[in-house]
Amino acid sequence: MAGKKTIGFIGTGVMGGSMAAHLLKAGHEVHVNTRTKARAAELIAAGALWEESRVAIARKCETVITMVGYPSDVEEVYFGPQGLMENALPGAILIDMTTSRPDLAARIAAAAKARGLGALDAPVSGGDVGARNATLTIMVGGELGDFEAASPLFACMGKTIVLQGGAGSGQHTKMANQIAIAASLLGAVEAISYAKRAGLDPRRVLESIGSGSAGSWQLNNLVPRMLDGNFEPGFYIKHFLKDLRIALESAVAMHLDLPGLRLAESLFELLQAEGFADKGTQALWLLYERGLMPGTTH
Amino acid sequence: MAGKKTIGFIGTGVMGGSMAAHLLKAGHEVHVNTRTKARAAELIAAGALWEESRVAIARKCETVITMVGYPSDVEEVYFGPQGLMENALPGAILIDMTTSRPDLAARIAAAAKARGLGALDAPVSGGDVGARNATLTIMVGGELGDFEAASPLFACMGKTIVLQGGAGSGQHTKMANQIAIAASLLGAVEAISYAKRAGLDPRRVLESIGSGSAGSWQLNNLVPRMLDGNFEPGFYIKHFLKDLRIALESAVAMHLDLPGLRLAESLFELLQAEGFADKGTQALWLLYERGLMPGTTH
Repeated sequence: MAGKKTIGFIGTGVMGGSMAAHLLKAGHEVHVNTRTKARAAELIAAGALWEESRVAIARKCETVITMVGYPSDVEEVYFGPQGLMENALPGAILIDMTTSRPDLAARIAAAAKARGLGALDAPVSGGDVGARNATLTIMVGGELGDFEAASPLFACMGKTIVLQGGAGSGQHTKMANQIAIAASLLGAVEAISYAKRAGLDPRRVLESIGSGSAGSWQLNNLVPRMLDGNFEPGFYIKHFLKDLRIALESAVAMHLDLPGLRLAESLFELLQAEGFADKGTQALWLLYERGLMPGTTH
Repeated sequence: MAGKKTIGFIGTGVMGGSMAAHLLKAGHEVHVNTRTKARAAELIAAGALWEESRVAIARKCETVITMVGYPSDVEEVYFGPQGLMENALPGAILIDMTTSRPDLAARIAAAAKARGLGALDAPVSGGDVGARNATLTIMVGGELGDFEAASPLFACMGKTIVLQGGAGSGQHTKMANQIAIAASLLGAVEAISYAKRAGLDPRRVLESIGSGSAGSWQLNNLVPRMLDGNFEPGFYIKHFLKDLRIALESAVAMHLDLPGLRLAESLFELLQAEGFADKGTQALWLLYERGLMPGTTH
């Protein structure tokens, strides 16, 4: 295969597993490492090469992709003992596809540059379905040369792939995405909560309001799940809360007050405190439905 | 024409004018009255019959449609001196298409019933474009018989026409619609405000976030206008604020706390206080852009 690359993939959970599988299918040599080896079993069966450590990956792969959990995990993988930064091959490109802190992405890029390495931040949206179908939106920050080098790989995993600007710009774009999601989900939940309290049939209300100027992906996709009592995670509350915290910290650092974001973040903090961390984001509905809102009168 | 009706239309502004014109085109006899006669000139030229007062309309028309400004106007037209309620023909149907208070709609319906009249609340969404193209969404509250009688008329003006329930249900549905709009507009504005502060190109960000789970009508339609510096009213801030006040009062009356709605309402109060009443709702952006947010640090 022309253009065949040796790729390291660290973090093969629900998202990363599907993404790495697409790289394999495209004919690349994919070396994998993840916290729990069992989670890589399917990939290994499909031809991925297991590596016992991230150092092993760093020392073999010209491109290393990371898709881990929290910014603290990203920091550990890049800067921790036996981290990628110290052990990467000369000229390698390091691509973090975790949703993480924009300032951490900038730090990674600066450290990489100082060592003659390439670095991109490239978080995604589209969820498990997008990962499975290779229809992810990939929001990229970094230098044009690195972006061009990585583009054939991104094309295996996603559909809408945009270089948004320098290091951190991918993460900032993802934060903008999450801010818009949080508010439209909040609006969907409040609209339906209002409709139900007013004695209306929420599904019939959706027929009237779903397709016009009130319409949103959140309203049309998550409200039916809420009304079915289905709170299984399409996207986990604990992960969304992580994102909203990053967005809020990042806004504060830029001296930008976003009261809608502040409100949404506080409601998801409350959801997590009430034990809903492992539910899907549509469980925001339960705060209203069960009267858990601070100040709710019943 | 079979099914030709004698229709009174009170309030022929931007919305009402287009709606009445569709009824005329469908072959109905349309009698009109509006506060400023000049605003009915086009309709009169097209064959509408001018009436000097609402009493004149009430005494001639088997169906009377009202599309006025504020709930206080609705109250005046129905219950004021020489109002519709006292002067309607026996068996007439009164249809209020103004966005107004659900409790006022219920009061109108009760008073109508006591007099042997029909009544529907039937607010719309879809704006001036929807009114012009007869693609409005019409959200109806009232009795099935009245709804069926009025359906051929609604079909001249709109596309998605749903009987949501008893008297007031149309208004409640419209409130749910406005609650969802307010939040998704807020999210769109905050997402773009964040992106801009982070040094990104907001239009490029829209390419990444517009079509996925962050997508909404507000994000995709109003953000481009904001970025063009176009704050002309597709929908007036003063009218949206009216709607949000009604929604909030109505929620409070139902002992329902909707913090997202409360926040949005307070921001639109601020916009109106800052002199933006006659701008379009997308001018919410200016609160962020000009640092007019309470507590914004610059």
